[in-house]
Amino acid sequence: MATNAQISDAPATRAGAESPTGLIERMAREGRAAQRVLATMPDETKAQALRLAAGRLRADAEIVLAANALDVAAGEKAGLSGAMLDRLRLDEARLSAIADAVEQVASLPDPVGQVIDRSTPSNGLELSRVRVPIGLIGIIYESRPNVTADAAALCVRAGNAAILRGGSEAVNSNRAIHAALAAGLEEGGVPRQTVQLVPTQDRAAVGAMLAAAGLIDMIVPRGGKSLVARVQADARVPVLAHLDGIVHIFAHHAADPAKAAAVVLNAKMRRTGICGAMETLLIDATYPDPHGLVTPLLDVGCEVRGDRRAQAIDPRILPASAEDWDTEYLDAILSVAVVDGLDAALEHVELHSSGHTDAILTEDAQVAARFLSEVDSAIVMHNASTQFADGGEFGLGAEIGIATGRLHARGPVALEGLTTYKWLARGTGQTRA
Amino acid sequence: MATNAQISDAPATRAGAESPTGLIERMAREGRAAQRVLATMPDETKAQALRLAAGRLRADAEIVLAANALDVAAGEKAGLSGAMLDRLRLDEARLSAIADAVEQVASLPDPVGQVIDRSTPSNGLELSRVRVPIGLIGIIYESRPNVTADAAALCVRAGNAAILRGGSEAVNSNRAIHAALAAGLEEGGVPRQTVQLVPTQDRAAVGAMLAAAGLIDMIVPRGGKSLVARVQADARVPVLAHLDGIVHIFAHHAADPAKAAAVVLNAKMRRTGICGAMETLLIDATYPDPHGLVTPLLDVGCEVRGDRRAQAIDPRILPASAEDWDTEYLDAILSVAVVDGLDAALEHVELHSSGHTDAILTEDAQVAARFLSEVDSAIVMHNASTQFADGGEFGLGAEIGIATGRLHARGPVALEGLTTYKWLARGTGQTRA
Repeated sequence: MATNAQISDAPATRAGAESPTGLIERMAREGRAAQRVLATMPDETKAQALRLAAGRLRADAEIVLAANALDVAAGEKAGLSGAMLDRLRLDEARLSAIADAVEQVASLPDPVGQVIDRSTPSNGLELSRVRVPIGLIGIIYESRPNVTADAAALCVRAGNAAILRGGSEAVNSNRAIHAALAAGLEEGGVPRQTVQLVPTQDRAAVGAMLAAAGLIDMIVPRGGKSLVARVQADARVPVLAHLDGIVHIFAHHAADPAKAAAVVLNAKMRRTGICGAMETLLIDATYPDPHGLVTPLLDVGCEVRGDRRAQAIDPRILPASAEDWDTEYLDAILSVAVVDGLDAALEHVELHSSGHTDAILTEDAQVAARFLSEVDSAIVMHNASTQFADGGEFGLGAEIGIATGRLHARGPVALEGLTTYKWLARGTGQTRA
Repeated sequence: MATNAQISDAPATRAGAESPTGLIERMAREGRAAQRVLATMPDETKAQALRLAAGRLRADAEIVLAANALDVAAGEKAGLSGAMLDRLRLDEARLSAIADAVEQVASLPDPVGQVIDRSTPSNGLELSRVRVPIGLIGIIYESRPNVTADAAALCVRAGNAAILRGGSEAVNSNRAIHAALAAGLEEGGVPRQTVQLVPTQDRAAVGAMLAAAGLIDMIVPRGGKSLVARVQADARVPVLAHLDGIVHIFAHHAADPAKAAAVVLNAKMRRTGICGAMETLLIDATYPDPHGLVTPLLDVGCEVRGDRRAQAIDPRILPASAEDWDTEYLDAILSVAVVDGLDAALEHVELHSSGHTDAILTEDAQVAARFLSEVDSAIVMHNASTQFADGGEFGLGAEIGIATGRLHARGPVALEGLTTYKWLARGTGQTRA
């Protein structure tokens, strides 16, 4: 850990000669203290503070958009790609959508205090498990300034404090959004240090967050594969994330060809850059209409790479290499393999899936049941587009991310995943024999 | 990671020139393959295989006890303490209790396949969250040979494979117990590599387990504080554990003095060496009968160390040092502080609790409610002995351990904590707009 690296742009009033480690430790202590206050606040206070934060975001629209314009100008000068500039750019409609999202989170039921289960074992204790906040969450993200508001709102709704560390491309936007949120939350009685933005772009501060075991309870990285990989490799703090989404759809021979064609086209092309986009299509060797699946994709300009049997479907299909089966394209590219029935499909999925989302298309209920049972991914779908893999679509109201790890929370993670529980045991003076 | 350390006692047929890392990686691959078979087995097959394993343990009692006698003799020669020899020693009754415990685990309901919740969001998908096994669990433990059977049974019941690494003092006992279990499980159709015992006492093998991120899904350390601390410090695999149990009881002025005295005596003295034993007693400054709490403890030989006000209760109370408030004695020693009411008690607990178990004694329901709400420990009790902090007492049937971390599972961890879940989404051809 670089403890004496230079701090590039910390506000002089706060972080003067502080090392990145010292800075993060101080922020974590302040965040934890704020969280303990937040934890005792009634539901309605937290919800109202979030509504005030959303209101402040709307009221400060001019300031936020001006800050964002600085980031966009700097990004253009630095030669950011069109896609990156688009992720970075805010306008009135986008900012209003960000405020809407904060209000939506405010309207979600408070998970804190929910009773998971109750029991009365033979010793006569009244036992219950009750949801409580996790504590202090670290969010490390890249160029999307909306994450600043989304993540903060979800953390606060579940009674957590947050330390946010956004990407340097969005530094002005993030500061402006954070300032508006923090002011609104404070107006609503939530301690100011509940949501903190790391005031430096020094990468050593990220390292300090990843090393802060015991101070930060969980880290959620939001961004590209290299960010997530670094966080997963270096973190001493538990991480909730997915590295990639190598998403499969298996078109079984008993699928409804019209439904299947529509789902396949949607799963690949609706948005190619999201983690739920299909990356590999497995076509049953006895599938009645393979052209119906592949031709529409080729016709809208999707590049298709196939194994030998798949290439026979259409002359425009390029040969797939071994790496294609393990590649998340996040683009209008698809790998296609022809497989001999369900067992071969299951084998391919087990070998190549990243455990994010996989789907089967079939009208055979027994085959569907086996696929749902045997595929061990966070989300397993039957007769639906994998682009539904999303907390909002799953009715969670929002999501802090999608997790492919096996502990704590899996799949879309929202408020429940930002809580833990404690056991309450109520007795009448029982002693243990 | 020492990859070429000498392997001291690996069976020549298996681990010949394998490095500890190579050994663990091979065992993990074999365990994961076995787990995938186990995951598809019907409930009754798993339960019956566990019953056969218990039966084989009983049938092989002579072999196991002879192996244990070797360990005890070696332990005596090595000068192990009486307490350690007692933990190590098996007899017919203890072995029978171990087999009973395996049968009890077999009779617990299978958590795999349980539906956690269902929903139908507006897109029309039928969503459900279904429990599935975590995968491959590593258990690292010390001298208690019963852990070999307990941990294996719990892992298998929840559909997981296990890699067990026991202490060198119990090496012969563990091998004999493991051989009996593995034979019984295999007889019941469970793949032999589902439960594996690390065949070497080389400590580098422990390091290799801790480093096996992506191969081992979770590590559970069972043993003393130094073992747990090493595992928590070094592991790259998620760890479920508690480091210590600095357990508080607050005797509020509105407690029933007779009940309170009985609970306090039980919480300290029933068994002093367990993690739920009270280590610090906080007595309300206006408590009506402080003598009634402390005198019985002193009378049965408990050493009591108090702050200045507590020392005034009885001349036999020794002065407490600053470290006493952060010490888990696991012995007949207690620290006692006199505190000014609920808020001071909460403050002391927040400062010194290890987050394991804390309790309040009071007949005032509002005060109890505040304590239960504001103390952020895995288990918070009202009017009951903290010695109940145990999976069996909590009706879980058994426990793999007690966790004080904030993610995945907290408090006593049993079958549910050995599972994760996946999302199933059943559609009728839905595409996302």
